[in-house]
Amino acid sequence: MTDFFKGIPAIRHEGPDSDNEFAFRHYNPDEIVLGKRMEDHLRFAVAYWHSFAWPGNDPFGGQTFERPWFGDSMDLARLKADVAFEMFDILNVPFFCFHDADVRPEGASFAESRRNLEEIVDYFARKMETSRTRLLWGTANLFSHRRFMAGAATNPDPDLFAYAAATVKTCMDATHKLGGENYVLWGGREGYETLLNTDLARERQHYGRFLSMVVEYKHRIGFKGTILIEPKPQEPSKHQYDYDVATVYGFLKEFGLENEVKVNIEQGHAILAGHSFEHEIATAASLGIFGSIDMNRNDYQSGWDTDQFPDNVPEMARAYYEILKAGGFTTGGTNFDAKLRRQSLDPEDLILAHVGAMDVCARALKAAAALLEDGSLERARADRYAGWDRPEAQAMLKSSLDEIAARVESEGIDPQPRSGRQERLENLWNRFV
Amino acid sequence: MTDFFKGIPAIRHEGPDSDNEFAFRHYNPDEIVLGKRMEDHLRFAVAYWHSFAWPGNDPFGGQTFERPWFGDSMDLARLKADVAFEMFDILNVPFFCFHDADVRPEGASFAESRRNLEEIVDYFARKMETSRTRLLWGTANLFSHRRFMAGAATNPDPDLFAYAAATVKTCMDATHKLGGENYVLWGGREGYETLLNTDLARERQHYGRFLSMVVEYKHRIGFKGTILIEPKPQEPSKHQYDYDVATVYGFLKEFGLENEVKVNIEQGHAILAGHSFEHEIATAASLGIFGSIDMNRNDYQSGWDTDQFPDNVPEMARAYYEILKAGGFTTGGTNFDAKLRRQSLDPEDLILAHVGAMDVCARALKAAAALLEDGSLERARADRYAGWDRPEAQAMLKSSLDEIAARVESEGIDPQPRSGRQERLENLWNRFV
Amino acid sequence: MTDFFKGIPAIRHEGPDSDNEFAFRHYNPDEIVLGKRMEDHLRFAVAYWHSFAWPGNDPFGGQTFERPWFGDSMDLARLKADVAFEMFDILNVPFFCFHDADVRPEGASFAESRRNLEEIVDYFARKMETSRTRLLWGTANLFSHRRFMAGAATNPDPDLFAYAAATVKTCMDATHKLGGENYVLWGGREGYETLLNTDLARERQHYGRFLSMVVEYKHRIGFKGTILIEPKPQEPSKHQYDYDVATVYGFLKEFGLENEVKVNIEQGHAILAGHSFEHEIATAASLGIFGSIDMNRNDYQSGWDTDQFPDNVPEMARAYYEILKAGGFTTGGTNFDAKLRRQSLDPEDLILAHVGAMDVCARALKAAAALLEDGSLERARADRYAGWDRPEAQAMLKSSLDEIAARVESEGIDPQPRSGRQERLENLWNRFV
Amino acid sequence: MTDFFKGIPAIRHEGPDSDNEFAFRHYNPDEIVLGKRMEDHLRFAVAYWHSFAWPGNDPFGGQTFERPWFGDSMDLARLKADVAFEMFDILNVPFFCFHDADVRPEGASFAESRRNLEEIVDYFARKMETSRTRLLWGTANLFSHRRFMAGAATNPDPDLFAYAAATVKTCMDATHKLGGENYVLWGGREGYETLLNTDLARERQHYGRFLSMVVEYKHRIGFKGTILIEPKPQEPSKHQYDYDVATVYGFLKEFGLENEVKVNIEQGHAILAGHSFEHEIATAASLGIFGSIDMNRNDYQSGWDTDQFPDNVPEMARAYYEILKAGGFTTGGTNFDAKLRRQSLDPEDLILAHVGAMDVCARALKAAAALLEDGSLERARADRYAGWDRPEAQAMLKSSLDEIAARVESEGIDPQPRSGRQERLENLWNRFV
Repeated sequence: MTDFFKGIPAIRHEGPDSDNEFAFRHYNPDEIVLGKRMEDHLRFAVAYWHSFAWPGNDPFGGQTFERPWFGDSMDLARLKADVAFEMFDILNVPFFCFHDADVRPEGASFAESRRNLEEIVDYFARKMETSRTRLLWGTANLFSHRRFMAGAATNPDPDLFAYAAATVKTCMDATHKLGGENYVLWGGREGYETLLNTDLARERQHYGRFLSMVVEYKHRIGFKGTILIEPKPQEPSKHQYDYDVATVYGFLKEFGLENEVKVNIEQGHAILAGHSFEHEIATAASLGIFGSIDMNRNDYQSGWDTDQFPDNVPEMARAYYEILKAGGFTTGGTNFDAKLRRQSLDPEDLILAHVGAMDVCARALKAAAALLEDGSLERARADRYAGWDRPEAQAMLKSSLDEIAARVESEGIDPQPRSGRQERLENLWNRFV
Repeated sequence: MTDFFKGIPAIRHEGPDSDNEFAFRHYNPDEIVLGKRMEDHLRFAVAYWHSFAWPGNDPFGGQTFERPWFGDSMDLARLKADVAFEMFDILNVPFFCFHDADVRPEGASFAESRRNLEEIVDYFARKMETSRTRLLWGTANLFSHRRFMAGAATNPDPDLFAYAAATVKTCMDATHKLGGENYVLWGGREGYETLLNTDLARERQHYGRFLSMVVEYKHRIGFKGTILIEPKPQEPSKHQYDYDVATVYGFLKEFGLENEVKVNIEQGHAILAGHSFEHEIATAASLGIFGSIDMNRNDYQSGWDTDQFPDNVPEMARAYYEILKAGGFTTGGTNFDAKLRRQSLDPEDLILAHVGAMDVCARALKAAAALLEDGSLERARADRYAGWDRPEAQAMLKSSLDEIAARVESEGIDPQPRSGRQERLENLWNRFV
Repeated sequence: MTDFFKGIPAIRHEGPDSDNEFAFRHYNPDEIVLGKRMEDHLRFAVAYWHSFAWPGNDPFGGQTFERPWFGDSMDLARLKADVAFEMFDILNVPFFCFHDADVRPEGASFAESRRNLEEIVDYFARKMETSRTRLLWGTANLFSHRRFMAGAATNPDPDLFAYAAATVKTCMDATHKLGGENYVLWGGREGYETLLNTDLARERQHYGRFLSMVVEYKHRIGFKGTILIEPKPQEPSKHQYDYDVATVYGFLKEFGLENEVKVNIEQGHAILAGHSFEHEIATAASLGIFGSIDMNRNDYQSGWDTDQFPDNVPEMARAYYEILKAGGFTTGGTNFDAKLRRQSLDPEDLILAHVGAMDVCARALKAAAALLEDGSLERARADRYAGWDRPEAQAMLKSSLDEIAARVESEGIDPQPRSGRQERLENLWNRFV
Repeated sequence: MTDFFKGIPAIRHEGPDSDNEFAFRHYNPDEIVLGKRMEDHLRFAVAYWHSFAWPGNDPFGGQTFERPWFGDSMDLARLKADVAFEMFDILNVPFFCFHDADVRPEGASFAESRRNLEEIVDYFARKMETSRTRLLWGTANLFSHRRFMAGAATNPDPDLFAYAAATVKTCMDATHKLGGENYVLWGGREGYETLLNTDLARERQHYGRFLSMVVEYKHRIGFKGTILIEPKPQEPSKHQYDYDVATVYGFLKEFGLENEVKVNIEQGHAILAGHSFEHEIATAASLGIFGSIDMNRNDYQSGWDTDQFPDNVPEMARAYYEILKAGGFTTGGTNFDAKLRRQSLDPEDLILAHVGAMDVCARALKAAAALLEDGSLERARADRYAGWDRPEAQAMLKSSLDEIAARVESEGIDPQPRSGRQERLENLWNRFV
């Protein structure tokens, strides 16, 4: 045992009336919701990146956190892993997620970086023998090192494409070895800073081919997990090609990958793209590409990625309602890709941020489930579209503009508006959240 | 002749040193730019809607304009047409555009509305015998009347779908009869106000089928023009399904329409979607769906559609540069879907707003053309990607992650970043605008 | 009795388990919260404008509501008043608010408009003899008619300034006569569309003088209510002079009015200005100018004023927490300056929107009160600043840079950061909402 | 001579037809504009921070620049100064600006940091004996080190207030010694992350007192320069107290400092606050607090501070038009607080970014001056308000609401709207830019 979390107890469910900071009030892994354990619904994951690798810097200031594992040696990487798994235990989370750069020091060459990763993956594997926490997904950091400054798959330099491809191969191997349930690609610098120096068409072709290679390799090695793209409109790039769910869908269709790749949706990214979180989830579900979520919110008043822990139950309930309607997660889960505020210096802050967020999600899930079980909202929705269930309406969809026009005139069709009842449905919603 | 524009002369090119308000300083239709007449590059159109039908209202105030043709009779509709064609002559514009609701009074029934439209279309046809102004595109207003409050093709009421389909048929007939070069669909209320009452998947299926019917009908009647969708992220709807170019592309791919339908891109809508105008044009061009533009800007500090006349030459030059790179307009053109500010009450304001906008576009076109002819920017761009022209790079695109990874290690690939030279390219740009 | 609300019962409190749409689940006027009746805390008001005068139009569509009182006669104005007071009774709200233009038809002259207002004010006065609903505030509509298109107090035409001043005098008289507790000014067109035609300094001088006249007149007639300015950053104007609370404060200071005028803060306007609602309330409270609130939210994804009914309890709790900390309302209250969605056509929608909103506010108030009573949050806040309570710290504030610098060196001061504990405080918060 | 800029010539004016990248086409220091040398109008400054201290990091990636002076020793600080002054010479700029943290390594104690600063200030002083470049302003970096994470003057820890006060004293001494013409305060972390842990009123009191101490110290040491506050709405803080010009004005009035402190306005910050640059300048001028500008733009599609070099002449012309109308700079100037894009790795990029920006500003200045000399725009503005020049209008401003109301009725005042002519004025504008 390290002593980083010394004195912090394992977090247990104590119910809503507990005033113990170090307890769950709402998250109760074994509680049955819609016929399934709460843990199996929510499938919580801790993100290695923000919780263990991020130093607390922002564009106007440097490191604020002082962690004993900060530094570049393999020993420190192992210490970091020890603390991470202690935290997974304290929180009793079923999953974690990582980038290669979070877990191993950069080597002097590609090969050394790969060996460092393999060594730490073996260390993870040994820890996972005694831990119940599994790997939700792995991913490659193709954006932090200066070599990636102009993109990875979309870099103007083919050598960099090669370096990125090799890196992804390495990370897919690591994910596969650790039994990861998904593999994620976030294209933080797959985009542009200025159109003046960019060949959009060429970059998209390269990006499409890169993604196809990922899918081909997945099948070659027998990886059964899901390949996920994480949409984001911008930042760090001025424009990112994976702008939002609808954009990613078009991209997948262009390259024939819509049955091979799904999306990992982040609340913060949804907001930055001008959408609500539930919009992105519902859109993905309706297009058949919903995969997983990053449950970290953006501040509505900030135009950059704030990656905060969720704190608003009604908002989260909207998200879980769409997820439940979509059938719930299969390989996906709820990853907290959230950073502590950089002033939250204490080890307790790291634990309590997750505890609060897990409770927010649990309340949201229960509210969404209750509303689904109640059925009123879905009945109202079905009723609104009931006209389309009539055979004449379905027949019309198979006819033509001129046939329809003739009928409109012959029948004197003069459609009358009907209330959309938005406020009533909001009231109904508020009975459950 | 009506006397609305009494005293306003026909606008002629007088060159940059003229201080005559009622003259073009830069727009010279017959001047040759990149081997083509300026008029044939720019293909200006006046929008009937904002210039003749909009009363000057905003969400907090009513009508400000007092036009002699305001009202609901066919006589007033003809007077409006008379004034419109006088304005086309004064400006010497080659094109105009209209919605059905702009040009004819609403009838008591669908059939009466159709007859009103047909009558005014005949009136247009007669006027076009002596005018040189042709029809760039027609479209149907499926958003202003209360019957459309919950959408047209995506309405929960199939009767409304029918009404909308019949309306589009009527407007396509009108456009075809008048020799229109395109037919436009703007889905202002094809979207939602709240997910609580919306069936996203069903609405998109209906919308896809509707658009397919439009394409089928086009072919049936032998309309040779282009079908265009105009993307917009929101407003009036909270969310519109045609959010931006990339979203429309995905939608077209879903329904197999990507070779049948192109986009009409508006600067203001691009901005509201979080993009630059040139981004949307370049994206459409790279996806093969670039069609036409609405050249009306948004105020960068306003979050709603301000539809202002363009006034910033360097910005417009970015747009025309992308258009020229894409080969220029074919059936498309430059439509001023712009409204006067509601305080610009005088007939002169209407003329001068267009004069200024046409000059801005002409300057932008000439600057873009000069930069293209110079070639420096395109050489810099090609040079940046030159590595990809090597056979080894192209071979890599056909290989696999593991082959590439092996090569990265065996060759010790360690790619070195190269300057993106953004500021130098911005300087180069500024030598031409 | 009119039959507009036929069949709709008076709304009564039935408790959280009720599934009656036409009941309050949380708003219980007589329930004691922090020693005061809930009704006296919340001081709900219905806004005449959106509920009875707005036709449902938006920038892309016209009227959707079909109300029997729509039209321009005094008879219809009285019918509107009858329905309004019936709604006040159904909802049991203690207050209402109105603009002159909401309640009377525009006359052919200023004098006729004034007489129309006086007549309807008398009609109100008679109705208020038997109603328990009182007037929270009155105001003048100085933005809808085309005469106000270039502003009221800031209009370039002094005759328009005069017309606006006379209108405000009339509305202040009406408010005084009806026993209104406040008088509000919203400067919707006190701003500019373009700096090119604007004399900023002159307009602000006129605006300051106008507001001073309002204060002078208040004292002359013995009106005891509060004068309130309602900040908004923009829309309809590109820029409005009353941008936000901090801007209004500077304006009041410039004209020596900071002890005479307070602010009426709207959630939607706060959001459009880049702030949270609680920020604006807390800022006003800290500056001593907090007055009243408009409790209508904006959609976070829309850049225009959506004026929706509140639906998010945790957000509203943030607002009431700041209000309670500021000592609660004195003359102010909670006005729903909210519009139905334009698709919410039915009379029931109008009632239920208010019922839901009142319940949201009641839950928020109770949560905020419980957290205040608990005291943990305020203790944590006080503890964070406790160092400043020491005499040395207070002495330092009276000293000088060089004295402090000398001490920093002599004492080797090296301040150590302390956790800001944001996530823990968010968790604490979530125990109460 | 260092060899960092080896091969780069001194930049000279060669006129608009030059195609030499390393020449000014428009900036000609000795050219007379409105009776004054262009250099004396524009008063360009290079910002030490972005040009010499920023490593090229962003929130998702680390250092991209590899500068020989990066590191923490005094030797490297001197090397950095050598290169900086070489660049000032190459560009022939009259001014530079710096933070303490840009120019000296952090010491192990406050005293050591102070001594480091004094040593480098002496080094600067010696270099300035042979350089023509003077100091536009100095400032203290009170936001980068972790000790400042919760603010400086507004920190909950009084020791930190002390540390910040001592730091500012040191930097004012340095600025004074080097003959700086202004001293700037940017309150990057004078704000909050969450209201939950913030005492707004207390923090503002401390901030007011801090600023008063700065003013007192300025007078004590006989510093004749101007104290400037640089408004910014947010980032790094969620909310910054110096939100925009109007907010700063209110703050200055609250503490009686409106005649002692002016503002340094940055284009990028203006945009982030929801304003145009020219709005902020015009507002400051009308309030008597206009001081200086940071001429670095924001990307309109990015919600964070992008700090780019200016590239749009018409936009900059709007800014210089307002500056010229306000009488031009006195102690202020045009500081490029702009960063290279992080992909612009080469020494040439650093020079050429400034060359291009200086040319953009020069073109903008000349256009603005020509329009002012022409006088048409100012005549149109004066004409619009001419009614207010009449004695009756001025008398009205001294009267009262009831007197005005009586006159409106007796004279039957019925003001008629007049065109605001926005598009015509935009056309006029475009004749000059």
